Amino acid sequence: MDAITVLKVGGKIVEEPATLERLLNNFKAIKGNKILVHGGGRSATKLAERLGIETKMVEGRRITDTVMLEVVTMVYGGLVNKKIVASLQALGVNALGLTGADMNILQSHKREVKTVDYGWVGDVDKANGSALAKLIKEGVVPVVAPLTHDGKGNMLNTNADTMAAETAKALVPYFDVTLIYCFEKAGVLRDENDDDSVIGRIDKASYAELKDAGVIVGGMIPKLDNSFSTLESGVKRVLITKADSLNDLNKGTKIEL
Amino acid sequence: MDAITVLKVGGKIVEEPATLERLLNNFKAIKGNKILVHGGGRSATKLAERLGIETKMVEGRRITDTVMLEVVTMVYGGLVNKKIVASLQALGVNALGLTGADMNILQSHKREVKTVDYGWVGDVDKANGSALAKLIKEGVVPVVAPLTHDGKGNMLNTNADTMAAETAKALVPYFDVTLIYCFEKAGVLRDENDDDSVIGRIDKASYAELKDAGVIVGGMIPKLDNSFSTLESGVKRVLITKADSLNDLNKGTKIEL
Repeated sequence: MDAITVLKVGGKIVEEPATLERLLNNFKAIKGNKILVHGGGRSATKLAERLGIETKMVEGRRITDTVMLEVVTMVYGGLVNKKIVASLQALGVNALGLTGADMNILQSHKREVKTVDYGWVGDVDKANGSALAKLIKEGVVPVVAPLTHDGKGNMLNTNADTMAAETAKALVPYFDVTLIYCFEKAGVLRDENDDDSVIGRIDKASYAELKDAGVIVGGMIPKLDNSFSTLESGVKRVLITKADSLNDLNKGTKIEL
Repeated sequence: MDAITVLKVGGKIVEEPATLERLLNNFKAIKGNKILVHGGGRSATKLAERLGIETKMVEGRRITDTVMLEVVTMVYGGLVNKKIVASLQALGVNALGLTGADMNILQSHKREVKTVDYGWVGDVDKANGSALAKLIKEGVVPVVAPLTHDGKGNMLNTNADTMAAETAKALVPYFDVTLIYCFEKAGVLRDENDDDSVIGRIDKASYAELKDAGVIVGGMIPKLDNSFSTLESGVKRVLITKADSLNDLNKGTKIEL
């Protein structure tokens, strides 16, 4: 079975020209099939601010009312996605920008209101792995923005880590899938201020311990939950690593069941 | 040879929910293969205004400096394109949003400065008809935003009529191509305020006369120049018509060599 790498890259990296350029060169260097899934939250917050729209976050997640949905649709689907696509084309990578609405690759539903009303935020229901696989086998490199649609004509703001996880799972029937979450730190750290404190390997047992000990907290928890869920769905390898080291699978934190 | 319809629709129609909905239903009703090429200028001007960015136009063409390029990339590639894609998916049409950068379908160069510096505006150099044709033959319906790229990592603002013409030409080796320009008027009018004054057919000889007589002026001139150029490149039929009549090829203005 052909191999594929699904690379998720956080906003901070794709939104600064110098780090983006390094990232795209590293991405280009990944051998074989690949997909890039990107964020863009900082740019969305910046545009919202310039438009006089207040950004409200609950536990790191953006509250997406109607005007904020327009902002993220413009920023993720337009500004950030097309910058990456044009830059990859300049590097000779045949990039194609996608949201979940395009070719219906990721359909979701508006998150139910429990304690918090997140607004136009999507929880993914189904992915069209076969359409994605067909494109990839023809040499296309998808660049996926963190937006889905609800099948009723509405776009939905969707967490980029989740987009990467759902995309990786959808490709399991077609490829041997490696999922790499990359960001500005060297991996999952014992001490968040010390890049030398990378935990080389986390499995379900050590994850429980690290959570209990308060070492793994905040935004790292959904990232790890997503990682385990993809492994349970047949993704072969999950790595959390620094953008600058993404071509060295021996660095960063390996996630294993 | 399979037939295809390339439909260009102006900003005014795609930017108002009620006219957009009617347009998309009419688009859906077009039998066989199809592509939608859209504008979005009014939304771009509106966003620019909210951001305190002045819109400068010369002969109906937008001066696109670096901040305006960000605005049009967000609005055309994000806001307008994804609204259309999500709406078409809701109608069961397998839409895929594209700019010229995606899969390198339309590459251009930054317009040379002669009397006017248009800024980040692209004149199309080459189209990737084979990539488009492959997608279409797999049942995908491209939705094209008026943006191209220069192959060096830059997006370029590109006239939507030109995008439609270049897309139509690129598909000539693969399909029997019909190009329809639709907008809010009934066709090319003898009296621009009288929708009953449609000129049913314009050929090169009558075009010259109508221009001399001052009947065809302004933005209609590049649209007609584009039309003749596509016919000379092998496009079979060109029609300029009202959005509400696009399914009736006997209405509107037929352009013939």
